[in-house]
Amino acid sequence: MKYDIQKMRSYFPVLKQEVYGRPLIYFDNAASTQKPVQVLMAQERLQNDYYGNIHRAAHYMADKATGDFETARDEVKNFINAENREEIIFTKGTTESINLVAASFGEQFLTPGSEIIVSEMEHHSNLVPWQINALRKGAKIVKLPISESGELQTGLLPELISSKTKLIAVAHVSNVLGTVNPVAQIIETAHKRDVPVFVDGAQAVPHIQVDVQSLDADFYAFSAHKMYGSNGVGVLYGKRKWLEQMPPYQGGGEMISEVSFEKTTFSEIPYKFEAGTPNITGVIAFSEAIKLLRETGIDNIAAWEQELLRYATEQLKAIDGLRIYGEAPHKSGVISFNIAGIHPFDLGTMLDKAGVAVRTGHHCADPLMNFYNIPGTVRASFALYNTKEEIDNFIKALKKVAQMLA
Amino acid sequence: MKYDIQKMRSYFPVLKQEVYGRPLIYFDNAASTQKPVQVLMAQERLQNDYYGNIHRAAHYMADKATGDFETARDEVKNFINAENREEIIFTKGTTESINLVAASFGEQFLTPGSEIIVSEMEHHSNLVPWQINALRKGAKIVKLPISESGELQTGLLPELISSKTKLIAVAHVSNVLGTVNPVAQIIETAHKRDVPVFVDGAQAVPHIQVDVQSLDADFYAFSAHKMYGSNGVGVLYGKRKWLEQMPPYQGGGEMISEVSFEKTTFSEIPYKFEAGTPNITGVIAFSEAIKLLRETGIDNIAAWEQELLRYATEQLKAIDGLRIYGEAPHKSGVISFNIAGIHPFDLGTMLDKAGVAVRTGHHCADPLMNFYNIPGTVRASFALYNTKEEIDNFIKALKKVAQMLA
Repeated sequence: MKYDIQKMRSYFPVLKQEVYGRPLIYFDNAASTQKPVQVLMAQERLQNDYYGNIHRAAHYMADKATGDFETARDEVKNFINAENREEIIFTKGTTESINLVAASFGEQFLTPGSEIIVSEMEHHSNLVPWQINALRKGAKIVKLPISESGELQTGLLPELISSKTKLIAVAHVSNVLGTVNPVAQIIETAHKRDVPVFVDGAQAVPHIQVDVQSLDADFYAFSAHKMYGSNGVGVLYGKRKWLEQMPPYQGGGEMISEVSFEKTTFSEIPYKFEAGTPNITGVIAFSEAIKLLRETGIDNIAAWEQELLRYATEQLKAIDGLRIYGEAPHKSGVISFNIAGIHPFDLGTMLDKAGVAVRTGHHCADPLMNFYNIPGTVRASFALYNTKEEIDNFIKALKKVAQMLA
Repeated sequence: MKYDIQKMRSYFPVLKQEVYGRPLIYFDNAASTQKPVQVLMAQERLQNDYYGNIHRAAHYMADKATGDFETARDEVKNFINAENREEIIFTKGTTESINLVAASFGEQFLTPGSEIIVSEMEHHSNLVPWQINALRKGAKIVKLPISESGELQTGLLPELISSKTKLIAVAHVSNVLGTVNPVAQIIETAHKRDVPVFVDGAQAVPHIQVDVQSLDADFYAFSAHKMYGSNGVGVLYGKRKWLEQMPPYQGGGEMISEVSFEKTTFSEIPYKFEAGTPNITGVIAFSEAIKLLRETGIDNIAAWEQELLRYATEQLKAIDGLRIYGEAPHKSGVISFNIAGIHPFDLGTMLDKAGVAVRTGHHCADPLMNFYNIPGTVRASFALYNTKEEIDNFIKALKKVAQMLA
């Protein structure tokens, strides 16, 4: 199948924007992706035609919105191949999904002396929630270290896991290095010792095929806004056996069965974990983002992005004094780099003036920055709508900027 | 000033919809309001023209989005007259705002034997989070009872408050009864005993003037989607002195200062409580909803809705066997009722077929239903775009339906 990049770009009106008089080159996709017309139209359709608050409703518009909301749950379930729709919980984002598990799983299963293994390359979102809840329960965080190439030292896992280990938290794909971690293998190792694994999939789901059953992940979290969907929508996948044992996270409407001052009982999953009015518009529009990914084919998208990665890496490596952080053989379209003697922030600011949107800084991964002993990096991250021409222009701009700042 | 209802209605395209061939009459506003073109256009503008992930950014679009996001914080601050912008925290909704305080204030200030006073008319969202966190800390929920007319028995407060009382949680306006509670007076009573007060303002902010400084509220929470804004956006106002003492709720990006496996430190407010990528689009569009309320004038809106309330109440009372729940002298435009011998769900379903969207059921207020010993009510709730003609048609339909079901 030919990948029709022009058709793909036509779905994203924002890509026609100019920045400082230059055509926009948007390489900040690991922070958040742009939204296609399909998603924008779904938002507008709901809000113009049949908006109503979902569940518990006896009127037409609320019924229709409820139907579409629950259809989105099925879309998500099928997209990641979950076994049951009840295992799909809508949250406000990956960060909340992680906090939900850290608090609720923590409440149920952590005891003083318990250990949670967290990798050294995690986004703060997949470290701080575990720290906060470990502290609350007198548990401890154990570090799974990385190597200089930006890969997990998974060989150390068998000795890091002990009878105190209650959970392993790891990213599927690093938001800084692009490393695709061998989560299937990590899960297999962990399960042999009866330890469940939480996977932060925010940087994986839009870029590589994710099958939670084949991975055998216990928990898997991701965000709509990083996969062409609206803001304020996240997913937590959790195996039924865990979710059913875990206490509610937030209290409120929807998640209860019966309430009295004396005794309150809770709903079944997934509703037990969905307190309050959810992001109805965002969830319904999420269906359209998933449809776009599904119809284009994740394998086609992955092949396209791999080609961009290869093409950009080659040209970057040719630049004097440039170092790429993250050289695992299996990477997604994320490149972090620095140029000797130039602060990443200055590089990013100057690239912006040339119309190239990259991200600079610690990328919410302080421990990883400490590992490499750097204040930050410049990060270019690709999406399904980026092109080789954009990479050419980015490289041209980067060379010019590097000369000016040298 | 003349209230220009036709101009107001023209802002809400959805009101032109038909349901089952009848013009839509949307009286489910206490569940969620419809969205005006100003809000829809702001959503579209951001996503088509300059979308980017906010904060920590060195590129044009992210900078612009960050600016607009922080401007929305100022809009909210001014709208409720908070003293400091740092006291405005964006959440995903009122329910989350309450859970944030219940968990974080609870963590810091509840000890075994502590008491939290919660009113009998609360939405589950303003009861269950307190129950969950009280249980965690060995604290107790104490009920502030209501009277048959649907008013709080505030005279009992002085004896309910003791040295064990750590907080009072109360709705500004009841989502079922429409009662406007005397929160200024409750807060004054509570403060005399050094007890802070949490106010659930979800049903108040779009309908009556709210000034958190003049109320002297310690915490005040509300949702954008109930005040003409997008889904998935809530606000927590909290006095600086409380927020600064409280530990973070969720961990992740944005809310940290420095992170390591050994020691993590947190940001200042408001960021300490805003972990993860927020609902950028929803928050920025929220500015437009507030602008509409501000420019129309809450007093003008309140006067209009009071006229609708008076007009509808009068006609409903004339219907044989109809009982209204909530007869406080000071009410907002919410009317809950039942007709003797008819189940509220049947009434609601038949009204829907006539194009009238009302809500039926327990309205997430089981304790209140138990107080009146009823399974639920039919609830009609008004917004700034409703009309007397709609009420006339609603009453006509209701009479017909009641006859059919009698």
